[in-house]
Amino acid sequence: MKIKIAEEVPAEAVDMDGAEGVKIRLLIHDAEQAPHFYMRQFIVAPGGCTPRHTHAWEHEVYVLSGAGTIVTAEGEIPLRPGHAVYVAPDDDHQFRNAGDEDLTFLCLIPKPQ
Amino acid sequence: MKIKIAEEVPAEAVDMDGAEGVKIRLLIHDAEQAPHFYMRQFIVAPGGCTPRHTHAWEHEVYVLSGAGTIVTAEGEIPLRPGHAVYVAPDDDHQFRNAGDEDLTFLCLIPKPQ
Repeated sequence: MKIKIAEEVPAEAVDMDGAEGVKIRLLIHDAEQAPHFYMRQFIVAPGGCTPRHTHAWEHEVYVLSGAGTIVTAEGEIPLRPGHAVYVAPDDDHQFRNAGDEDLTFLCLIPKPQ
Repeated sequence: MKIKIAEEVPAEAVDMDGAEGVKIRLLIHDAEQAPHFYMRQFIVAPGGCTPRHTHAWEHEVYVLSGAGTIVTAEGEIPLRPGHAVYVAPDDDHQFRNAGDEDLTFLCLIPKPQ
């Protein structure tokens, strides 16, 4: 059992090509020895975005605060708190902040093999 | 890619021994063909609780609203929105509503084998 207060977990800058104004908090991860999947919280500053990309693993996302969009192969879709997004393996995707405050969301991934 | 608005997903009563006033929404589950883990949202009414139990799989929990506690082998710990809880396999646990409004949280589990 381990309990963390998300806002007290250090937010580290995401240094990936295409990421702008993005930070990540590792909420349930290696340190917890989570056996199957990891919980991360992302914070995207106003004007910021995650990389537009695809990869072989899925995302399970839950929007916590702010206003954003997800860019998909079929266009851009608005997101707000309470939206749950399943990004299937190989789905083209990018999260964008579309508001004046931070966009925060949980994004869970399978544990890398 | 699949996007759901959590509050529009039907909340089904949890009919387990020891569950009182608990509903569940399947946000990312079988229907999405999620390959590794499932995202569920729980709603515990004032006075309600989940079963106190242990099991062989982990929980990854994020508290969304309300006030609660988690009962553990070491005692009862307060929970509020923004708390992330890793319940390791075989950890004794129970979630209790400790407030006057619904306690809602995400609880993710590995896909049953």
